[in-house]
Formats: sequence, C-alpha cells, structure tokens
Amino acid sequence: MQRYFAKDQIDDKFILEDSDYHHIKNVMRMDNKDNIEVVYNNNLYLAKIDDIKENIISKVKKIEIQKQKRPEIVLYIPLLKEQKMDYILQKSTELGVNTIIPIETSRSIIKIDEKKYLKKRQRWMKICKEASEQSKRITIPEIGFLETIDSLKEVKSVKLVCSTKEKTKNLKNIVKTIKDCDKINVVIGPEGGLLEEEENTLIKNGFIPVSLGDRIMRVETVPLFILSAINYEYME
Amino acid sequence: MQRYFAKDQIDDKFILEDSDYHHIKNVMRMDNKDNIEVVYNNNLYLAKIDDIKENIISKVKKIEIQKQKRPEIVLYIPLLKEQKMDYILQKSTELGVNTIIPIETSRSIIKIDEKKYLKKRQRWMKICKEASEQSKRITIPEIGFLETIDSLKEVKSVKLVCSTKEKTKNLKNIVKTIKDCDKINVVIGPEGGLLEEEENTLIKNGFIPVSLGDRIMRVETVPLFILSAINYEYME
Repeated sequence: MQRYFAKDQIDDKFILEDSDYHHIKNVMRMDNKDNIEVVYNNNLYLAKIDDIKENIISKVKKIEIQKQKRPEIVLYIPLLKEQKMDYILQKSTELGVNTIIPIETSRSIIKIDEKKYLKKRQRWMKICKEASEQSKRITIPEIGFLETIDSLKEVKSVKLVCSTKEKTKNLKNIVKTIKDCDKINVVIGPEGGLLEEEENTLIKNGFIPVSLGDRIMRVETVPLFILSAINYEYME
Repeated sequence: MQRYFAKDQIDDKFILEDSDYHHIKNVMRMDNKDNIEVVYNNNLYLAKIDDIKENIISKVKKIEIQKQKRPEIVLYIPLLKEQKMDYILQKSTELGVNTIIPIETSRSIIKIDEKKYLKKRQRWMKICKEASEQSKRITIPEIGFLETIDSLKEVKSVKLVCSTKEKTKNLKNIVKTIKDCDKINVVIGPEGGLLEEEENTLIKNGFIPVSLGDRIMRVETVPLFILSAINYEYME
C-alpha cells in the first residue's frame, strides 16, 4: 500500500504535503474510499481517502510496528557532486540511515556558502522523504547542517572514522565490541581521503580509526557498505 | 598508480586494449618511463612505459598479492533497465562480486533476444573491466549468458534465493553456517519479487530461501547489501 508522511494531524484527519496530494490523485490515480498508509510522529496508521477533491484523509487505525533493534547510525559525509550526493541520500535511506551530516574537508572539491547549503538541504530532505515513503520507513533521515572536522569534537557515543592508514582494527572488530550502544557515528572521507592532520584531529577528539578491508570503493559506495554491514551485524 | 588489464603478453611486453592506450596517453597524459600496474592472468605486475608512441609497455616485476579469503560470490540478477544494470555492475565490481548472471523472470519488464543480449553483454563486460581497474581488482567479474529459473537447477555449491516470504531464516543465519564453502550463489528477484512458482522451483532445485531483514530495498540495492554483508562476515 502507498505510504505518505503527514505534516500535521487535526482530530482524525491527516494533512499531507501538496506534492503528496498531487501524487495520490494524478500519479496513483486513487479515489474516495481508497486506503493509504500514513506516518505521523513516527507512528504508522491505516488511513482512508474521504474526499479526494477536498484532500480529506482520515485515520482508520494505528498499525503496530516493531522498533528498530540496532543502534542509530549517523553518517558524516563529505560534500560531493550533486548526482553522487542524491544517490547516497536515496540508498542510505533505503538502508536505514538515521542522520546524515555533510562535512567540509580539505580534499572535497565542492565548496558552498551557507545560503546555498540551506537551499541544497531542502532538496536533500525531499529526496530522503520520498525514499522513506518508498522503502516504507516510519522515520525520515535527518540532514544536519554543514560541519567541519573541528566541530565534530562535540559528537557523543561511539565515534568511528574510516581510515585507509589503519591496518589492525577493522569495522567488524569494533562493531563486535559495541553491540549495546545506542548510536554509531561514522566519518567518511572524500575522494583521496582525509588529510593526515584531519584524521589525527578526529582521533584526538575520540574517533576510532577503522579499516573497511582491502577493497577500494568509490566514496559513494562507502556509506552503503557501512550501513549494510551494520544491518547485517544486528540481524537476529 | 593507474591499473590496466592486459589482453596479452609477448615476452616481457604487455598488450593492452586500444582504449587503454588512449587512456594512458590522452586522459592520464603519461609518458615514457612512467610506471603503471598491469594485471595479466590474475597476476599483478609493475610495468613501465618504454615507448608511448609505439605502445610498448614492459614488465618491471611481479607484485605479490593476498588471495581473497571469502568464498566466490555469484549473483543471479533479473534483467533491469540499462541505468540500473550499469549501476549494479559497477558497484558489485567494487564490492568484489565474482560472477554476475542475468536471469529471465516473469515479472521483469525487460525482455530481450539473444542477439541483443550478446551486444549488451559486451557493454557490461566493458563496465566491469573499467570498474575493476578503478577498484584495483586483479580479476574482472564474469558475466554469464542469460539464464532462466529452470536452468538454474544445474547450479552447484551453496545456493540461496532472496525471499520476501521467508520469515525464519535470514542471510546471516545461513552465511554463519556455511563459512568454509568455496562459492555462494544468490538469486535476486525483480521489482515485485519472483512468482511463488518461480521461488518454489528454485527451492525444489536446492536453493535455500533467505530473508534480507525488514527493510524494503530497491532491486538495484539488494546486490550491494548482499556483497557488503558477506564481505563483512569474512573480515578478520
């Protein structure tokens, strides 16, 4: 069944984005009495289209769902070209990322001012919302504001940085030792990697350098590998 | 260092594809005495450009490399639209797939005759070769001929089929029990999944149905998840 994230709820009526009403009418061609799934406040509901012309959608009942069993995953991702960024956002959403925080790094080719960033962030949030509906999530990944390597010293909980220099500790060794944590933060470097001083700054601030193995992956593949690996680790 | 797969070797000279000579000269702008890495017969060599005009590249020495520790992974993938197929080929190569075998399934939208298929296969092999050079593999994934669900009864070794109906056995349960096998075959269904009779045919032919967890992934994301998960499982 088609799923939509509601932006508001008034009594037992859900208020959707205009683009969702458009999707319901003109893409899905639904009509009165058709059912949809609506997510509001991280809860899932069965809902019914009462009046398609007036955009009236009312709650039928709450659907009980299992809460996710694995820790939250926060990915820190270098600014990349639009297409790669869109791709990471869509795939990471499918693979259950909780938060994506873009970071400025010396080697990342993309530089951007705050005004431009906020505009991009709007677009990225839309991509994550649509991917969340498609993959039937009950949460939409959050997209943080642009951070710098230095500003990450405030990060709490488990903190990892993907390192090409690290030879002894790999992602698996570490994840095995932290099974009961509530959140895993992972910093991913740009094409060409983080500068040594950037990696050292993170390590100084409590980030554990981990290897991802011998394979050479493109930057946009790394988030998918990490999310897949952690999802797999927490399968029961 | 730039890596190329040689198509032949005569004495200590490597013969590359014309497109690779073009890449060396016009994209990388290399010159005489520059070094490159050359893979020939699954061996890696340091090589030197002796005469760039005459395309003379000679072996300097063999580079010793570790053999892969995990089983071979063979993915059976439904025919998909070109862009999704290209994407799977590139990313699966980065993630170390050994063989990709396209399959015809009832629900896959793409139908194709043998002549067209062979043409496509040429293109796909090129994509895999380039991705193998980029990700510094010493093997290029093989791309099989188009198979049907029925023809898969000949498949040997560990055989899995990704199932949306399977509720008890997931990928992790199974992979944990087969750690020492030499090859893992995985069948991935099309958008909308395999028909029940297709899945039953595979099960009758010895394929084990496995769940990939609760997440709803697009078809093109599934191969990446499976490869990442198995790579992670075999990390040491």
